[in-house]
Order: sequence, then C-alpha cells, then structure tokens
Amino acid sequence: MEAGRLKTGFTGSGIDRADRFRLDEARLAELAARLDARLLRLDGLDPVLDADGRLSWGSLAELEEGRDTVFLGLDGDRPLFAPLARPVPGQRAWAVFHLLTRMAPEDAALWGAARSLAEWHARHPFCGACGSATAFFRGGWGRRCGGCGTDHFPRVDPVVIMLAEHDGRVLVGRQPQYPPRRYSALAGFVEPGESVEEAVARELFEEAGVTVRQVRYVASQPWPFPGSLMIACLAEAEGDALSLDADELEDAFWASRAEIRAALDGAPDAPFLAPPPYAIAHTLLRHWAEAERLAPGRPPA
Amino acid sequence: MEAGRLKTGFTGSGIDRADRFRLDEARLAELAARLDARLLRLDGLDPVLDADGRLSWGSLAELEEGRDTVFLGLDGDRPLFAPLARPVPGQRAWAVFHLLTRMAPEDAALWGAARSLAEWHARHPFCGACGSATAFFRGGWGRRCGGCGTDHFPRVDPVVIMLAEHDGRVLVGRQPQYPPRRYSALAGFVEPGESVEEAVARELFEEAGVTVRQVRYVASQPWPFPGSLMIACLAEAEGDALSLDADELEDAFWASRAEIRAALDGAPDAPFLAPPPYAIAHTLLRHWAEAERLAPGRPPA
Repeated sequence: MEAGRLKTGFTGSGIDRADRFRLDEARLAELAARLDARLLRLDGLDPVLDADGRLSWGSLAELEEGRDTVFLGLDGDRPLFAPLARPVPGQRAWAVFHLLTRMAPEDAALWGAARSLAEWHARHPFCGACGSATAFFRGGWGRRCGGCGTDHFPRVDPVVIMLAEHDGRVLVGRQPQYPPRRYSALAGFVEPGESVEEAVARELFEEAGVTVRQVRYVASQPWPFPGSLMIACLAEAEGDALSLDADELEDAFWASRAEIRAALDGAPDAPFLAPPPYAIAHTLLRHWAEAERLAPGRPPA
Repeated sequence: MEAGRLKTGFTGSGIDRADRFRLDEARLAELAARLDARLLRLDGLDPVLDADGRLSWGSLAELEEGRDTVFLGLDGDRPLFAPLARPVPGQRAWAVFHLLTRMAPEDAALWGAARSLAEWHARHPFCGACGSATAFFRGGWGRRCGGCGTDHFPRVDPVVIMLAEHDGRVLVGRQPQYPPRRYSALAGFVEPGESVEEAVARELFEEAGVTVRQVRYVASQPWPFPGSLMIACLAEAEGDALSLDADELEDAFWASRAEIRAALDGAPDAPFLAPPPYAIAHTLLRHWAEAERLAPGRPPA
C-alpha cells in the first residue's frame, strides 16, 4: 500500500494489526502456539539484527518464563509477537541510532511499535484515575485497572515538525543536546485545543519569533522515543528576523536549497550535519530542497 | 493568522498561549490580579453564552474559593483564565452540541481548550508511574507527582477521520450511537507505530473492508470530547465492495457529490443528516463535494 506521497521512516511494515483478535485471549493463545509464529528478538529495548541487517526473529519457545507478549499482528498469515521489552540498565536511547541507519523502514516500523508499547507499559503500572495497580491486556494494546476498572490505551503524542520558508530559504535550528554541527527542523508537541496548523505557528513564534501566514502538511511518521506521531509541515514566514528562545534553541539560521542539499548529501563543505534518514526532518528537508516551492514563480535557489 | 487552507471548528482564537509564563507562579499571580484579567464563565463543563451568542467572561473575583484556575493565555495584552471546570451531576457532553451550533469557532476554541484540560485533570489525580497523588501545576498545563516527582502533561489523542473515494462517490457510515439519519466520515485513533496515512488505511480496512491506494491530508482541528486532534484525509479506494464491522458501523454507503451537498445544505430530500459545522467531518465533506477531485480528468458528479 502506497499510503502517502512520501516514504517516511518507521513506516511500511504492511502487516495487518488484527485488532479484531486483541480481546480474544483464546485466539491469541492459539496464534502464539502456531509453529509459524515468530517472536521479535530484542536486546533490552533495542532490536537484534541478522548478518544481512534485517530484524532477527525467533520462535515463541524463546520467550522468558512469565514475560508478557505483545501481539504485533499478522504478516500475511504469520502471527508476529514481541516480548514486552524492559530496558537493560545503562542502555541509552541514542545507542540504537547507529543501528537505525542500517535498518529498512518496515523493520524499524515493527520494532518501533514494540518499543513504544514497552515504554508505555513501563510508565503506566498504576491507574491515573484511582491509583490502583493496572494489568496488561488486549495483547499489549491496553492496561486495565484492578481497582476502578478503567481501561487505559497507549498514548500517542502528536508533534509538529516544520520548516518556515522565507525568500527561498528555510529555518533550521540547533537544540543544546544535539550532536556537534547537527541542525534540524523546529518541532514541538501539539497542545489541547489547537490544530496542527496553529501548533506550527505557535512553536515557530515561541522558539524563533517567526510569524507565519500559511501552513501546509507534508508527511507523517511515528517516532518511538517514546511514542510520538510526527507531523511534518511547511510554513510561509512573514519575515526573516529571529528571536530565539535560548531554552529551546542554541542557534538557528536560514539555509538555502544548495546548503540543505549539501548537508543531506553529507558534503564535506556542508554548513551543518543533517538529521538522519529515518527522522522525518530529513524527509522534509529533502522534499523542500528538491521539489518544493511554496511561493509561485520563485525559481529554486 | 490564516494558518491552514480550510477554516475548521474549534480553531482561530488567535490568543498567545504564553507558555513562557506557565512555570512562573509569581507572574501568573500578577496576571490574575490585573483589573483587565478575565475569567471564562462555565456551567459545569459547558460554556455560558451572552445574549449575542458570545462567550460570557467575568472578573477573577467571581472565582470560587479554593478553585484552581487554568491560564488560557493573552488576548492581545489581556490575561484570560478559566476555572478548572467540574462536571455538574447528570450533565451530558451532547447537551452542549446545540450551543456549539451558535458559537463562533474562535470562542469554541477557547472553551474547548478549557474543557479538554478539565477532563484531563479529572482523569489524572494519581501518577501512572507510582500511584501517588498528583498536583495541579504550570497554570493548568501539567500535573506533578508528589511521590516520584514525575511531571505529567495533558494528553492529546490523534484521530484520523477520512473519506474513501471511488468512482466519484465517498464512503459515509453510521455508528450505532448517532442521532437518527446521521451519517459521517469514518474515524479512528492513531496507534503507536503508525503514520497518519497508515492509520487511515487500517481504519478503512478494519471498519469497512475498503483497501486504499493513496491518502491525502486535508485539514485538522481539536475536538474537546475529551481531547482529540482530528486529522482529516481523503483516500483513493481500490474498489467499492464493503464488509462492515458491525461493532463500529451499523450502516455505510457511497454518496455522490449531489447527495453530500443536499445533506450539507439540510435539503428535505437529502439521503442523510450531515454532521454539524463545528465537526471536521462537515468541513471535509464540503471540501470534497465542492472542490475536490482526487482522480484527474473526472468531472464532478
């Protein structure tokens, strides 16, 4: 299924999530008992890769005693499960980033879903409504409170990530915790009571003092650190004056198409280090640098 | 600010949410003490309207003793607050729907933010991580755990809402709890590990057995019952055969542009009752019926 116009990271697994089986404990047990069922191999929260760089899968017999399993869905007819992952002490989220550069987006998608669910379960052993203990259910796609009976569903946080454009250049910024020379699109969480377009305008104004006229959606992808939905947009800026929020950005500048292309291609004289291909900021920058002209009649730089 | 291409419900308040003041208790107290500060009048969770149909605002002196206040932001220079709303016993969410048909979208936006926050606070008196009591902070835009110190932020659930198109018609469906004759766009929550486009394809397949090729974003809006981000899309269906999930839909059919226009205009011979103007399904249906042709070369029906 070619769902969107642009191929984004952490998408394209093509599996049937088979929501219809999640509440059917007998069916889940039957699927897990099948000889062709597969269990995702994990190292703490991280994936294990085969020699060819693909996800490593084992049989359900490899499951540790007493470990819950997440039902990922059906790959054709084959049931796919993942152990409910637990972090290895000292394991850092960024250690997986070098693996991700080698992984196919569809493999990253399957692993990403398992990772997001694992983090959500780890953060929700108790009920926010009554404080009682909650328990794993729905094949991992929920937790039920043992006290008040409230059902809780995995949280997905929508995040806008955007390029403001002005006069043939786009705004890229640098957060203090980024690796050396890295710049990327600006981003922020969508708040209650605002649209995607309003969140884009608010974040650009808050972080960089930039006012925008028009916002246009480009693409989306999940981001499993721990569970965001990234919504990538382009926005037309009214001017190029900047007023940076030093808590959010340590630097920002307007980059030309030639500069963005050099960064994406890893050119030695590029003015900055681009975000990696599995980040939607990369997709958004490439889309703009190679194809996009927001204002009609303006030639590519 | 004309943020998006289409005007959607619950948007356009144009206020500065002034996130920069939320953690500054002294500043918030100073803003609340100002003579020009305004407090949103509420009836339980519902808005109170003036004779002219606009939101009713009072002074902070009207605040009940001991009631927390949410800092909505600055309207120009004027600070806007809302009491942390509590449901009136017996008050139903749908009772507000007749008020919403009279409200300006920018008023609905301000009230919607206050309502979403109120519901979120009411559902999160305890910490999901450790089970201890949490307390109101950040001017209402968070809760802090008194046990483990975890900060919790208001939840926003991304929801896809979409029209599958085939041969000049779009699919509308009817959920069992809808009012008589109401049909609308299909919808569902985005899950961890999927993009907007994948969620659209999954929901159309799960609910109606429809397979789609291409998905295109149209518009977004918040929905304060209790706190969703609605993401409206069009999708190109491969065929028009339907296989309905009876738990989700009691009926669905492919409607022509003429039928959709009749429904949106409230024509007596319309084949169904359209969703109300403040719902993004209405915006999406009108956008498709009046302007949209996904497949090139096909004349409007």
